[in-house]
Amino acid sequence: MMKIAVDAMGGDHAPQEIIKGVEAARDQYPDIEFLLFGDEQQVTAEIKNHERLQLIPTTEMIEMGEEPVRAIRKKKDSSIVRAATAVKEHQADAFFSAGNTGAVLAAGLLIVGRIKGIDRPGLTSVLPVPNPELAQSNFVYLDTGANAESKTKNLFEYAYLGKFYAQQVLGVKEPRIGLLNNGEEEDKGDRLHKEVWQQLNDATDLNFIGNIESGALLSGKADVIVTDGWTGNAALKATEGTAKTVLKLIKHGILHGGLRAKLGYLLLKPVFNQIANVMGTSTYGGAVLLGLKAPVVKTHGASKADAVANTISQIKTMIDTNVIQQTVDYFGHQELVDNPTEND
Amino acid sequence: MMKIAVDAMGGDHAPQEIIKGVEAARDQYPDIEFLLFGDEQQVTAEIKNHERLQLIPTTEMIEMGEEPVRAIRKKKDSSIVRAATAVKEHQADAFFSAGNTGAVLAAGLLIVGRIKGIDRPGLTSVLPVPNPELAQSNFVYLDTGANAESKTKNLFEYAYLGKFYAQQVLGVKEPRIGLLNNGEEEDKGDRLHKEVWQQLNDATDLNFIGNIESGALLSGKADVIVTDGWTGNAALKATEGTAKTVLKLIKHGILHGGLRAKLGYLLLKPVFNQIANVMGTSTYGGAVLLGLKAPVVKTHGASKADAVANTISQIKTMIDTNVIQQTVDYFGHQELVDNPTEND
Repeated sequence: MMKIAVDAMGGDHAPQEIIKGVEAARDQYPDIEFLLFGDEQQVTAEIKNHERLQLIPTTEMIEMGEEPVRAIRKKKDSSIVRAATAVKEHQADAFFSAGNTGAVLAAGLLIVGRIKGIDRPGLTSVLPVPNPELAQSNFVYLDTGANAESKTKNLFEYAYLGKFYAQQVLGVKEPRIGLLNNGEEEDKGDRLHKEVWQQLNDATDLNFIGNIESGALLSGKADVIVTDGWTGNAALKATEGTAKTVLKLIKHGILHGGLRAKLGYLLLKPVFNQIANVMGTSTYGGAVLLGLKAPVVKTHGASKADAVANTISQIKTMIDTNVIQQTVDYFGHQELVDNPTEND
Repeated sequence: MMKIAVDAMGGDHAPQEIIKGVEAARDQYPDIEFLLFGDEQQVTAEIKNHERLQLIPTTEMIEMGEEPVRAIRKKKDSSIVRAATAVKEHQADAFFSAGNTGAVLAAGLLIVGRIKGIDRPGLTSVLPVPNPELAQSNFVYLDTGANAESKTKNLFEYAYLGKFYAQQVLGVKEPRIGLLNNGEEEDKGDRLHKEVWQQLNDATDLNFIGNIESGALLSGKADVIVTDGWTGNAALKATEGTAKTVLKLIKHGILHGGLRAKLGYLLLKPVFNQIANVMGTSTYGGAVLLGLKAPVVKTHGASKADAVANTISQIKTMIDTNVIQQTVDYFGHQELVDNPTEND
């Protein structure tokens, strides 16, 4: 029986949609037990069936706008701090939240803790490959923004974190690793990216395929794209923003295009639905802070029950496949044999 | 009479489309004279009417894949080097090319030269604001990638380069200046962006409106968005790549959606054309290397005659409005009074 610690109070639709999603996952997976951290009255009111749900009452809540580290330190009885602490104390195997991203990351880093040998965890998303001509449907992308300033060793570590995740969770045997850079040629980039390129290229246990430009982010050229959190964040937000802009433009054109455009829209509706479905994959499943001693997973604040259930299924796969232990073993072993990350 | 030095050999469709575009611009603007640098035979073969076109034969060509600085140093009789030299020697007022971007930038920097007081020129694009509900249709964006590594003073200078360009070329009276950053709040960013935020906020002659996230790049919140060349390049390429991806997905859906989808497409064609038109603005007009002693403008290698003519009209506006002289005066004056850029 695996146990997942859930922050029942985080997210725009908490606790209602969180509990609804948790109950759906509970009904689907008989081997998961949930610890629900939150306001006793509010959470109890939403629970339909208490099977394998344990409510742990908390009295505080970290709001969306709060300064993360300060909030974590001050609000000891918040649902985020209590849920993370349950993982730290081995009462739960993973931590799930749809709340304040910074606070979840801080709780992961400061309470759950880093894997020995990892300098900085990377925030990891699975993004869609919207190319109907490829069999590949998604890829692993990190760091999406846990760290605004990065060193060579951080990106080098991300390559392994991403590799293990792609192998275990997405089932890719030999994940192709790409480096997000400002050009495809091997001499491209600033000093940081040139150094990372060299280390990735020299590593004998990585299937490194070279640089990938942000214009080809969704192209499916790699199974893992490694980037520093600053660039990773900028490229991801630009991608999401542009997809929304184009779809908004289409919507506006249809609304202002008279009967002809409306009829055209009805006929093309299956096409638009399919696109929304493919591009929307990025908002499904959660962002994982890889490099911690247990799965710490954050879904979008706007998540509804289906996204919550989906993310729990992702956490279950992480626990079932033991991907974290693989990372612990790899970096623990590296520590003993030699430590190439200590030299820069 | 203004004179524009044209690299007639650069671009995928050179010299044919370059000459065609130049002749269209010549016919439209009676006050422009062109110096065409290129292979005598090839260029002559394309010219229909020699009025205000002066052919200056060159014997070398810098190819798309060549290492820029080396190529500039070695190929002294290339169309790029000769055209840039004509500007340096005051035989022409501006330099236009659709060739090797790196070589054009290097020729601009090393031959045409920087304005006194400017540390690094910034590559500047005018990008569309695809929001039909706003009157604003575009904004100035720099640096799109001339410099992979930037200092605080570089971004501070870009704010002025962008401000003057928005005022003179786009006709915006008090351009709103935004800083591309990883969050909207004033304490966001790495050390570089925090420092730039402070300097921009302290400047009394800038209408600084704060940080802008890359997800809101095309939102029209600012008339000038300042960014370091690394982030600017990543966000711009991600934006272009995503727009292409979404439109490709729609195309694929239509092609594989049977008769119903094809009929829908025909009905929605005006909407799609309008979107392609709005989003395509970014590929019209050229990228200007601002901070040099004269306009140095690079259009996309795939440019056809209309894009060439369009870019020449943009160069004409730069010369007519004397935007470069305004920059020279501002930075020359700064040099005398005080030099805040010298302190970091």
